[in-house]
Amino acid sequence: MLDLEDVEAARERVDQTARDTPLEYSHTYTAMTDAEIHLKLENFQRTGAFKIRGATNRIATLSEDEKARGVVTASAGNHAQGVALAATRIGVDSTIVMPDHAPTAKVKATRNYGGEVVLDGVDYDAAAERAHEIERERGLTYVHAFDDEAVMAGQGTIGLEIVEDCPEVDTVVVPIGGGGLISGIAAAVKGLDPSIRVIGVQAEGASSAAPSLEKGERVTIDSVETIADGIATRSIGDRTFEHIREYVDEVVTVSDAEIAVTMVYLLERSKTLVEGAGAVGLAATIFERFDYADGEVIVPLLSGGNVDMNTLTTVILRGLVEMGRYLKIRTVLKDRPGALEDLLSIFSRHDPNIYSIHHDRTSREIELSDAEVEIELEMRGHDHVDALLGDLREAGYEVEEVM
Amino acid sequence: MLDLEDVEAARERVDQTARDTPLEYSHTYTAMTDAEIHLKLENFQRTGAFKIRGATNRIATLSEDEKARGVVTASAGNHAQGVALAATRIGVDSTIVMPDHAPTAKVKATRNYGGEVVLDGVDYDAAAERAHEIERERGLTYVHAFDDEAVMAGQGTIGLEIVEDCPEVDTVVVPIGGGGLISGIAAAVKGLDPSIRVIGVQAEGASSAAPSLEKGERVTIDSVETIADGIATRSIGDRTFEHIREYVDEVVTVSDAEIAVTMVYLLERSKTLVEGAGAVGLAATIFERFDYADGEVIVPLLSGGNVDMNTLTTVILRGLVEMGRYLKIRTVLKDRPGALEDLLSIFSRHDPNIYSIHHDRTSREIELSDAEVEIELEMRGHDHVDALLGDLREAGYEVEEVM
Repeated sequence: MLDLEDVEAARERVDQTARDTPLEYSHTYTAMTDAEIHLKLENFQRTGAFKIRGATNRIATLSEDEKARGVVTASAGNHAQGVALAATRIGVDSTIVMPDHAPTAKVKATRNYGGEVVLDGVDYDAAAERAHEIERERGLTYVHAFDDEAVMAGQGTIGLEIVEDCPEVDTVVVPIGGGGLISGIAAAVKGLDPSIRVIGVQAEGASSAAPSLEKGERVTIDSVETIADGIATRSIGDRTFEHIREYVDEVVTVSDAEIAVTMVYLLERSKTLVEGAGAVGLAATIFERFDYADGEVIVPLLSGGNVDMNTLTTVILRGLVEMGRYLKIRTVLKDRPGALEDLLSIFSRHDPNIYSIHHDRTSREIELSDAEVEIELEMRGHDHVDALLGDLREAGYEVEEVM
Repeated sequence: MLDLEDVEAARERVDQTARDTPLEYSHTYTAMTDAEIHLKLENFQRTGAFKIRGATNRIATLSEDEKARGVVTASAGNHAQGVALAATRIGVDSTIVMPDHAPTAKVKATRNYGGEVVLDGVDYDAAAERAHEIERERGLTYVHAFDDEAVMAGQGTIGLEIVEDCPEVDTVVVPIGGGGLISGIAAAVKGLDPSIRVIGVQAEGASSAAPSLEKGERVTIDSVETIADGIATRSIGDRTFEHIREYVDEVVTVSDAEIAVTMVYLLERSKTLVEGAGAVGLAATIFERFDYADGEVIVPLLSGGNVDMNTLTTVILRGLVEMGRYLKIRTVLKDRPGALEDLLSIFSRHDPNIYSIHHDRTSREIELSDAEVEIELEMRGHDHVDALLGDLREAGYEVEEVM
């Protein structure tokens, strides 16, 4: 079992490649929650996520012979970049197996950090299989993404920084995917001060930690479905399960809707980009997925900021829809002069900002004499949306909300 | 004419409401440019932009009698929020006239900062007219957004911070809208060290400063067209023109495409949200709109981060298109079995990531027997795009790039 000393020993090694990320008090979320919120901005870490810490500690503790042979891993995400840069900085060769259809930006970034990228396998499992083949064939050391004490200890250095920068911290809120991040952090902060509470957060659609704790054994779920791809794992690890059981006070979940809204808040209010997996800690705090007192000093860890830009545009719209600020509706008009004006007169009573109107008389799903209209609107919140939809329906329009 | 002492005198007043924003060395842009790039992150300023500095200095220097009566201004953007918060913090009433269709988020933010919002006027000019009426009717003091020495001196405090945090700075790169920001900053840094170069940047579609300098008198352009709405002004001010002529070394422009690409870089690489107007300084640096030497220490000012979220999704796509990373094409298939498969076999040779395929047999613009296909793709850059389009056209498809 990992303890504070292991994490402290990791620190000097981790400092070779990673930076001490800022901890910032937030007016915005303090006002929203009545707690006292300080954000740990690990999205500003080199490579855009915490993974470089654990990878560095793992690689730096290899024997000279192992270092000379090099390391291998499989990842479609942040771990790939973390291992590549950590290895390069320490002067070790790295081979990273990524699935065939890994996002171009991540492949490119991993190569830029000096990793040799092998594109192989339809998904992560197939890529991992190939990576283990390469491990055997070429005598490389496999760097596991989470279920490894050296990796966990490296991630734990975040816990040391949090307590140093904010000694009055009451509660730390940490994302859980495989569990390596929270295992290291919990070992560190509980070692420094056992009264600090550690809350773990998973996505509702990838929740294996809470059922594992309940059942007293590691649970693997059948499928995962969440926008937080960085924590979309079917189970936590063997070792991480033991650490979570020992050190973590509570594990909660948040919905994709809550994650999307939190990402929009972080962009709009904090001007900072955080990926879905990195936003779950703040989401659990804002949406009160755990209990806390007024004035309680809470540090949500924003663990990474690597979001595919196309995904981001989708998430922003999803967040705005959830906040009642964006509405896209479809309705059908009798195709006669003035029909669109009649519809718009109802809109004008509610004064939304109209982004676009798409008027289509050729859709095959409706009768030939009718016209389909699709309208995109900026709204002022759920009450505003409900009032507009109510009036439209009262006037006899069949209205469908799109997306 | 403003000088260093005026800016230094403003500093203590500005510190009442504004924060000293971070200056951060950037590996990414240093590697891109071979200069040495430090970013001044004014997008992390309270209210999300620099405007609060000038507003604070203006309001804090009012007489007690003027303070008791309150202030008024017109703005559809950052100045509204800056004046509202500055006034509230100093204990002064503020009235902000915003155009009827100002974005909901900005109206709400201005109210949250304690401003009394009056929605009036179809555009900024009409709102400003109403604000001047209120000034006369109610005996309030009008706070101009830029053409006012107290406002300029307040913005100039950014220059003091830059030189303090980075005394080795060679060149500061600053956005120009009305010119208040650059006037204050240039007065400050030239006062501290006349060898520091000050470069001003405007959007190509709103370029009045360079022609004004050329002509030796203030030029007003007929219309503005840029995604950088925060600097979409038809002319600089009288006073700011004098300061720019005296203190600024060079004024350059950047295109909307360059601004969009820079905003995507800032999100993807720096995990930070910067608005169009705030990104022009870095855009001018990356796209070498002015000359600089290898290793030259350059500080682009990222002046604000307030972007409408719907606008942001559009800008991200625009940026990706410009980088050759996103492609949306439309083509027409003979409506016979296998036509889509034939088309896709050409795609598979180039292995793009396909985001969506929209297959439509009912569009009225094409013959009844044909089918229109719209395809969204993630691409690996311009060469990849050109190769795919070349093959499609060689195979006889008429391909149209959309957006």
